[in-house]
Amino acid sequence: MEYDYLIESDLLIPMTEGLPVIENGAVLVNEGAIEACGKTYEFSGIKVKNRIHAGKKIIMPGLINCHTHLPMSLFRGLADDLPLDVWLNEHIFPAEAEHINPESVEKWSRHSCSEMLLSGTTTCCDGYFHEENVAKAVMASGIRAVLGQGVIDFPAPGVLDPKKNVAVAVEFVKMFKTASPRLYPSIFCHSPYTCSKETLTAAKQAANDLGVLFQIHVAETKNERKMIQGLGRMSIVEYLESIGILDEKTLMVHSVWIDDKDIAIIKKKGANVAHCPESNMKLASGIAPVPKLIEKGVAVGLGTDGCASNNDHDLFAEMDMAAKLHKVALLDPCVMDARTTLKMATIQGAKAVGLGHITGSIEKGKRADMILVDMDKPHLIPMYDPYSSLVYSAKASDVSLVMVDGKILVQDGKIV
Amino acid sequence: MEYDYLIESDLLIPMTEGLPVIENGAVLVNEGAIEACGKTYEFSGIKVKNRIHAGKKIIMPGLINCHTHLPMSLFRGLADDLPLDVWLNEHIFPAEAEHINPESVEKWSRHSCSEMLLSGTTTCCDGYFHEENVAKAVMASGIRAVLGQGVIDFPAPGVLDPKKNVAVAVEFVKMFKTASPRLYPSIFCHSPYTCSKETLTAAKQAANDLGVLFQIHVAETKNERKMIQGLGRMSIVEYLESIGILDEKTLMVHSVWIDDKDIAIIKKKGANVAHCPESNMKLASGIAPVPKLIEKGVAVGLGTDGCASNNDHDLFAEMDMAAKLHKVALLDPCVMDARTTLKMATIQGAKAVGLGHITGSIEKGKRADMILVDMDKPHLIPMYDPYSSLVYSAKASDVSLVMVDGKILVQDGKIV
Repeated sequence: MEYDYLIESDLLIPMTEGLPVIENGAVLVNEGAIEACGKTYEFSGIKVKNRIHAGKKIIMPGLINCHTHLPMSLFRGLADDLPLDVWLNEHIFPAEAEHINPESVEKWSRHSCSEMLLSGTTTCCDGYFHEENVAKAVMASGIRAVLGQGVIDFPAPGVLDPKKNVAVAVEFVKMFKTASPRLYPSIFCHSPYTCSKETLTAAKQAANDLGVLFQIHVAETKNERKMIQGLGRMSIVEYLESIGILDEKTLMVHSVWIDDKDIAIIKKKGANVAHCPESNMKLASGIAPVPKLIEKGVAVGLGTDGCASNNDHDLFAEMDMAAKLHKVALLDPCVMDARTTLKMATIQGAKAVGLGHITGSIEKGKRADMILVDMDKPHLIPMYDPYSSLVYSAKASDVSLVMVDGKILVQDGKIV
Repeated sequence: MEYDYLIESDLLIPMTEGLPVIENGAVLVNEGAIEACGKTYEFSGIKVKNRIHAGKKIIMPGLINCHTHLPMSLFRGLADDLPLDVWLNEHIFPAEAEHINPESVEKWSRHSCSEMLLSGTTTCCDGYFHEENVAKAVMASGIRAVLGQGVIDFPAPGVLDPKKNVAVAVEFVKMFKTASPRLYPSIFCHSPYTCSKETLTAAKQAANDLGVLFQIHVAETKNERKMIQGLGRMSIVEYLESIGILDEKTLMVHSVWIDDKDIAIIKKKGANVAHCPESNMKLASGIAPVPKLIEKGVAVGLGTDGCASNNDHDLFAEMDMAAKLHKVALLDPCVMDARTTLKMATIQGAKAVGLGHITGSIEKGKRADMILVDMDKPHLIPMYDPYSSLVYSAKASDVSLVMVDGKILVQDGKIV
């Protein structure tokens, strides 16, 4: 038998249990799946069609971007350094109304996919409108993606009648349930302040019936609580729990303004969190209590958010930012250590978006989503601890090869 | 007459007064100096030896790194995610005692110079020991640098008898005062908690007598105040003012734990500040009140600090971090806008280290320290505002050409 690929490297970081560092390691790939992973000598004599000698390039899992709005790369840098309401109401919403259509959604989603692949991201979790056009871009690009059609109680691009918002989202899931093995449809309810209780429960019920991930922005800003009707004394998290929104198939995006009681609820219900530090910083939303969430055992992944509030899809920069932000916020240099941070960007992110069994680490049986990171650069020398080097020193531009589902999509730092 | 270089680009960002954006701009360079800067058509018919058509690559001033310890790239990632005292006493100090010698200082300073040049930095302001070997590395690399021999009241690498610390620093200044037109010697007193009042005043007096910059770490950590004898009710800044340390030729590094009264003193004395957000975040030192300092008119530059606490020399990442950190810390998305941040990394940084008349902007009479930033990359498209793009989206790896003092040191992203 002849396998598709054997990739050998001086250093393999599989991000599996116990976080091993495998010197002189190799990964065997066949039909898009990881067949085996171990010391290079274990594969001597094996027959392969393609042998990649990565040398000083680290083999590691591709990164997981847990929160994106892919078409918004069109608005990258359109309006920065502004108060949130001015930014949203005077710039982003009007720009969306004018420029968002099926063609622009597909074009800029494709652009974002290229940007993500070039920076080592192999899976993203997206929510937007005209999501079927995001799906087309994703399928063409070769990336892996969880995609949710947006649900909001206002006229939205492609869904002018809000009464149809859940039906359109359900239609999207049905249309793409079996369209591609790399595409996982989902439902993306915008937020508890832009969706009524009825919309939230109907959308969540539909997601459960369809067996798909339910994404929702939660407690992003301090003001959000005031914008939700009928909370009474409840926190936003308590409200969402009370109407049945929180469970293992719910991804709570942002989760900035939550307290210890909320964290206990999130843990109890098994819900997951997408942490978007750069977006939360740039929009001055606040600092999510991520070290506490992780300590309590909640699966927290990293997300860039859309390009209008970041302004890129670079998870290497996001890791560096996440690790440093929480240290200074808590005045504790030990929190968010490099291993914890790299787990967020890989295996924990995969779990958070419901793909922990598919991707996020290099182990037998998972799909072959991997990247090579070239460590032979001045800013990566010397290397005492590869986890530190990957989080604090490596850059998106150090990614030289990207494989998704066993296919090479980036080689020598360029889209194939 | 034939000039050395004419560099033409679709976009020239000179960082001069009023922050103009010059479309189809060009810079004329001769004998290491900027001869003229304007619209490309103004230079038609001019004779030049080398014409560079930068096209979609932005021409901008080289970046100024206001605080480095260049030899410490040897310790990049040696010990991360640790409490400050454990990091310093159990890892960094022993590593310095064992591995710092004239040869390692020169070797790793040279390494850091390459890293800085490749990421678009054309000037740095350094302080360390065996600084004459840093100077050798700087001269060989072609970068511009302010270099200060360290003064500390403990036995230090190369200065085993602390009684000689000021004399050694003075000797360094005299030795390098005329050694190279790109090298500006300085005196670097480590801090008010590691130097006595006598040492501080003697070192500052010597710096004044020699007419050079005086660098000092100030109020980096919350605990620092407790470590200084004889403060009484004074703040650290009041103490330094009371003993004559603060004036226009003093660079206060970090300045994290300072209050409004301190800021008023800094402004009154005309002292300058080097802000090192990534280091302050990673070591969990705290967040310097930079927007207030800038509002009061203090010249604040950006620094990476040494590679043991960052872990790189990347000022593009530092700009992104600085802009976002202060927004979230103050819950105000309008502070530290892209223009303010880019000024910190260029002209304000140059002023802070005493080289505002030499570098930091592209204008007639200044030395030709410039970089080209390639905007034809997915993460830089579209571009609505070049300042936003440079701060929030551009990366060190987008730097394609670096010129210092009229010499090209990096071309096509590689050291020449």
